Amino acid sequence: VRAVAGSGVAELVAGLEGRQTAALARAISLVENGREGYQALLAALHPKIGRAHRLGVTGPPGAGKSTLTEGVIRAYRRRGLSVGVVAVDPTSPFSGGALLGDRIRMEAVSLDAEVFIRSMATRGAAGGLATTSREVCDVLDAYGFDRLIIETVGVGQAELAITASADTAVLVLVPESGDGVQVLKAGIMEVADLFVVNKADRPGAERLQQEVEVMLGLRRGNAFRHVAAHHGRTDGWTGGATPPADHPSPRPTVPEAWEPPVLLTVATEGRGIEDVVDAVERHHAAAQASGELERRRRAGLERLTRDVVERTLRQLVWDSDAADARLVAGLDRVVRGTSSPYQLAQDIVAGLTKGSDHDGA
Amino acid sequence: VRAVAGSGVAELVAGLEGRQTAALARAISLVENGREGYQALLAALHPKIGRAHRLGVTGPPGAGKSTLTEGVIRAYRRRGLSVGVVAVDPTSPFSGGALLGDRIRMEAVSLDAEVFIRSMATRGAAGGLATTSREVCDVLDAYGFDRLIIETVGVGQAELAITASADTAVLVLVPESGDGVQVLKAGIMEVADLFVVNKADRPGAERLQQEVEVMLGLRRGNAFRHVAAHHGRTDGWTGGATPPADHPSPRPTVPEAWEPPVLLTVATEGRGIEDVVDAVERHHAAAQASGELERRRRAGLERLTRDVVERTLRQLVWDSDAADARLVAGLDRVVRGTSSPYQLAQDIVAGLTKGSDHDGA
Repeated sequence: VRAVAGSGVAELVAGLEGRQTAALARAISLVENGREGYQALLAALHPKIGRAHRLGVTGPPGAGKSTLTEGVIRAYRRRGLSVGVVAVDPTSPFSGGALLGDRIRMEAVSLDAEVFIRSMATRGAAGGLATTSREVCDVLDAYGFDRLIIETVGVGQAELAITASADTAVLVLVPESGDGVQVLKAGIMEVADLFVVNKADRPGAERLQQEVEVMLGLRRGNAFRHVAAHHGRTDGWTGGATPPADHPSPRPTVPEAWEPPVLLTVATEGRGIEDVVDAVERHHAAAQASGELERRRRAGLERLTRDVVERTLRQLVWDSDAADARLVAGLDRVVRGTSSPYQLAQDIVAGLTKGSDHDGA
Repeated sequence: VRAVAGSGVAELVAGLEGRQTAALARAISLVENGREGYQALLAALHPKIGRAHRLGVTGPPGAGKSTLTEGVIRAYRRRGLSVGVVAVDPTSPFSGGALLGDRIRMEAVSLDAEVFIRSMATRGAAGGLATTSREVCDVLDAYGFDRLIIETVGVGQAELAITASADTAVLVLVPESGDGVQVLKAGIMEVADLFVVNKADRPGAERLQQEVEVMLGLRRGNAFRHVAAHHGRTDGWTGGATPPADHPSPRPTVPEAWEPPVLLTVATEGRGIEDVVDAVERHHAAAQASGELERRRRAGLERLTRDVVERTLRQLVWDSDAADARLVAGLDRVVRGTSSPYQLAQDIVAGLTKGSDHDGA
């Protein structure tokens, strides 16, 4: 089995190097379903990743993220850039329909061979979706797409975790999203590099734009230290639009500091999309120049490593017959109350780990 | 440290036995924050749990769950029953405000000493919220509350995981929730024991009620086998309101089968609340008689044990200096591409586990 899996992986890697779409689809399925060899494939692809610019698009349901994403794809294509898209729905039931519908609408662009779109939905794999969606992006990156877009439905913790792997995070709002104060409370403002007020032909768009700008100004002023700590930005990333005169940038053609712009779009009519793409490209250049991009990617690889460690531990413990036997044997006592879940868990963990002295209970 | 933590736990257990509110608040904080001794406390309380009837209330944002919950609390109090409430918000930002506002509105009932309300929000502890909210319920159960209510905001995977620990699951809908077909798709219908169409004074309430009833009928008829497998209901739980004549129940005063009712309420006016509480009590009696309650609780304890195992493994690996040292030392190679997150993760796991032959990469 090992040899077969190994040669399967080598074959897939060769297929990806030859830019075969069939190999790409098979590689993504392998990773998405965690089938045998998926980690070997990802390990083999790892040296090839890092070329694609990764864009995260997040925002509340109904903000028009998919329409905006479609517009961004078209804009990239006009610039001769290939685009891979991963659309993720970590919430289930009630918002689930939207992603599917949007995917169908996006089929116009998906006929283009230089565009690849993949939808992912939660299938009980809660907690693992951020890791898996990042790994699917790694496959698309290694395949050679110039730009990757990770689109999420909603703005919960799961979406934030998914967006965290992007180089540039775009938060899409609509006039109905409520006042700026609520947005600031959200905690999501700190992770956005770019704000889009979509459906800007509706009343309240400019007011929301101004409110977000005021919030960003307050953040730069009073709350800067907190935000800098949150981002691990302790040097060079001062949040000013132009480098201060007393700290001249070593590369003056690329602004080293970044002030998140708040842009207005009407995605259904294509209005404002080019400005969004320009701003994304500017952010990427600025992040590269300041070292922020390198810091983010390093943090992302650390997070991925930690996630893989935890995933491996889960698999090790639950794939072991010994753990299952202990669980089955001990559960009756837990149900009767003569043991507790904590004592039983301790027994199971002790069976896996090296002479550790656990006394969780 | 051990002795201090141990005596602290013994003191807390004694305080809970004496029904001291201060001890209850301290015990919950200990568990919620995972501070030293929390697992020892939960292990000590384990034999005392199981008396409280646990009610899960879930549904889309804006369905009026908190208002309904408040009405249910009042109804229980009129029946002389004490009530513990855990309100959980696993989504963050955009829906976050509602829970807080609802909590303030609920303060009228919270002045009652026989009512205890605790709000929990995600604080980066994604994935762990279902476990922690269940453990907080265990503390409330051991303290002696007659009824526990676990209210969640939203209907995503995280909410389903939280609701899974309830004895009786109530799904709250509103006429705006969309047609019954969408609800059925949701997958959440399978876990609900009771449906409430709230805001039933609005147009479309009775239509939604009928649609849900039709879906439930279809489920009982065509899709019963699938649903039975999903629930692990393989005996006695036939889904008929009255026991079939050819299978007389051994205890005819308690119906052994359960057909989820679809009830109409206007929670803001208290209309329909007593019917909801009656139905919840009927479900509990039926689940007890059929053995379903015992099965659910056993499954819940197994899930809790599994979650505690995974939590313990995470703590063991990341609390170890060796794992941190390996991560720091290896990350540079991962960033340069001369190693991969998968090889590094394998090294870290190998440092923790007993001579296992991991080859994830």
